[in-house]
Amino acid sequence: MISENLKGFKCLRCGKEFSLKQARYQCPDCSGNLEAVYDYARIGRKADAVKKSLEKGIYRYLPFLPFADTKLTPPLLVGGTPLVKSDRLSSKWGIELFFKDDTRNPSASFKDRAGAVALTVAREDGLDRISCASTGNAGSSLACLAASVGMDCIIFVPEKAPQAKIAQLLLFGAKVFAVQGTYDEAFDLCACVSTEIGCFNRSTGLNPWTREGKKTVSFEIAEDLGWEVPDYVFVPVGDGNIISGVWKGFRELFYAGFTQSIPKIVAVQSKNSDAVHKTLEKYKGKDVSPEEIEMIQVNATTIADSISVDVPRDGLAAVRAVRETDGFSVEISDEAILEAIKEISSNTGLFPEPAGATAYAGLKKALEDRKVKSGSRIVCLVTGSGLKDVASALKAAGKPISVSTDKAETLKILCGK
Amino acid sequence: MISENLKGFKCLRCGKEFSLKQARYQCPDCSGNLEAVYDYARIGRKADAVKKSLEKGIYRYLPFLPFADTKLTPPLLVGGTPLVKSDRLSSKWGIELFFKDDTRNPSASFKDRAGAVALTVAREDGLDRISCASTGNAGSSLACLAASVGMDCIIFVPEKAPQAKIAQLLLFGAKVFAVQGTYDEAFDLCACVSTEIGCFNRSTGLNPWTREGKKTVSFEIAEDLGWEVPDYVFVPVGDGNIISGVWKGFRELFYAGFTQSIPKIVAVQSKNSDAVHKTLEKYKGKDVSPEEIEMIQVNATTIADSISVDVPRDGLAAVRAVRETDGFSVEISDEAILEAIKEISSNTGLFPEPAGATAYAGLKKALEDRKVKSGSRIVCLVTGSGLKDVASALKAAGKPISVSTDKAETLKILCGK
Repeated sequence: MISENLKGFKCLRCGKEFSLKQARYQCPDCSGNLEAVYDYARIGRKADAVKKSLEKGIYRYLPFLPFADTKLTPPLLVGGTPLVKSDRLSSKWGIELFFKDDTRNPSASFKDRAGAVALTVAREDGLDRISCASTGNAGSSLACLAASVGMDCIIFVPEKAPQAKIAQLLLFGAKVFAVQGTYDEAFDLCACVSTEIGCFNRSTGLNPWTREGKKTVSFEIAEDLGWEVPDYVFVPVGDGNIISGVWKGFRELFYAGFTQSIPKIVAVQSKNSDAVHKTLEKYKGKDVSPEEIEMIQVNATTIADSISVDVPRDGLAAVRAVRETDGFSVEISDEAILEAIKEISSNTGLFPEPAGATAYAGLKKALEDRKVKSGSRIVCLVTGSGLKDVASALKAAGKPISVSTDKAETLKILCGK
Repeated sequence: MISENLKGFKCLRCGKEFSLKQARYQCPDCSGNLEAVYDYARIGRKADAVKKSLEKGIYRYLPFLPFADTKLTPPLLVGGTPLVKSDRLSSKWGIELFFKDDTRNPSASFKDRAGAVALTVAREDGLDRISCASTGNAGSSLACLAASVGMDCIIFVPEKAPQAKIAQLLLFGAKVFAVQGTYDEAFDLCACVSTEIGCFNRSTGLNPWTREGKKTVSFEIAEDLGWEVPDYVFVPVGDGNIISGVWKGFRELFYAGFTQSIPKIVAVQSKNSDAVHKTLEKYKGKDVSPEEIEMIQVNATTIADSISVDVPRDGLAAVRAVRETDGFSVEISDEAILEAIKEISSNTGLFPEPAGATAYAGLKKALEDRKVKSGSRIVCLVTGSGLKDVASALKAAGKPISVSTDKAETLKILCGK
């Protein structure tokens, strides 16, 4: 059942409001992306139930979600991931540093938050098929969750997508189309075919419900900090949908009276995929309305494949998240990302893929540039597991010490004698 | 602080008892593996505190663990993994089927349970270095947990270990020795060097504390079933240490009065690594004491690398787990394991490595052979993530459908027109 708290949509570009019946994917007027709007006073009255909920994972925040109950949610545990404080890295930088470890989701990425909510909305709508264009985590997440409920799932990937990622999709039982073209062409084909066959299209940017799942990360961060917010949240940015969710989550907590402020949100991008950063730089210090902002496009080549994006499909929301929270953006090299993988893994035991280490790499740059005050409380999102990209892990790893079976040789290395 | 509930050790072979000061790694008399023994009446008096604990993960069962508090435990969430009921596979087989999804641990395998307890015991002992011989999950788990507390970690791998697994160890900051020899030679070198430098050796079989971590899986299964036990637990078996932990966990719950019975435990092995199964067959129906049992050795070649074992280092405990719970053993082909990966993934959204799919493959064989009553409540352990072995996933996956960017072609395939 659709939640009674859900009021409708608001366009992130032109600001017009629509009922749920008037709009479905994008703004009927300007084709901007839509944002779901709730009755926050009403949610606020349920604060006690939320805070005392025994539910694990994202459904403990049910009043903030578009459905009224969990009858049609997938049976896998999504969210409820650990917020890990790193004492050593905190001391090293003179800050209070936490990592939000979203590698611990069912398909080992943050995307499960989006998939779980989108898939539930599709089931509430009575649809029995769900689709998505993807080169990686979004697709494997959707296929994983669809398998858990026995729903038909159609994934469109560019034919050059890595074999390992295609293998995972196939194992989850998805119908996988390898499109002879680019990701953008796979995206368009998915949109076209989905409309034609009446299939729910979860593709990022187009679908307004993914943000409703992604925002739950902010609820968990605030709850784990005792319903306080950190000073900064560092977020890896590709298409801009995750950062838009983080922003929305903190806004909603504030609107509903759960928290007293909204943290500064920092967008981190690779220099080799920096459309959002470039756009932010272009409009820095300028008083422009969302409608006036034109996204810059780039030719992305970063090693961090999950945030390698030419045309950010939720870019305007990303730009607004940074500007409207008084945050900033940082760009870093791919080498800095690989270094960050090693530094995070060896200091915390977390094991991020390149995109998952990007937020921390950006934090280091911000500290160097003195953009962050010492003593600040900071959360870096870790969005995907290093096991998804072993090739990059190999680049960051170094070499083992080769020894014979004779113990004297090893003892000499260990004890220097 | 060491727990006051902990009384000492008992040898799993000769049955002799020792104080904690008298024994350390193996039985001083017969070199059998040791089992920690607690005061179960005392633990039973704390049942209420355990059942109402707000602690997440394995430390909620603190009275059953060898340490008295969580001051020195690693900060990563270990255990507390989902018990996932599969409605579709339950209907298919006419049973009540659950998967215990231990891919959701910090290093994506069951081994984190063992590593967390062993590492905490080492820290309680005031040791600052920990070592292990490994070809895979045990090593990456130990390195992960050691990184989380800043402890020095030394791992010995055979030089032919997969590059990806070595990369993960190096990223966690472990000192990695690639030994010019087999796993058995790496095991011996690790034991020798560890004794010499006073380093805590976590190697499986030798170290009695790994079982103390592994047993927590049984506590979680029972708790999730409302402090009832299933009829059968299916366990993938290599060196025998996991199944020995499962057995000990259910025994301890029963001894301490948490549960009313002990489930039948089923050992599942690949035909290409079946030392425990062969030993069980040899002594089937015979009334022999543990001391009379001689383990059969094999030349293991299975695709399920995590359970590919020539000499099961905790084999006797595995044999006893099956014999003393009135369970049985099953052996299956590697092809059946690959099929099981696909069947689990496409029906549940879980994504196991070959060893992680082995229990379910064994269950299918047992159902075929009518060794399991219909209507039984069954738990299959899923011990490691498929992301750790993408090569095997590729073998099980099949192929995507290649299409052009023209929607007509895709629509024809989807709608047949």
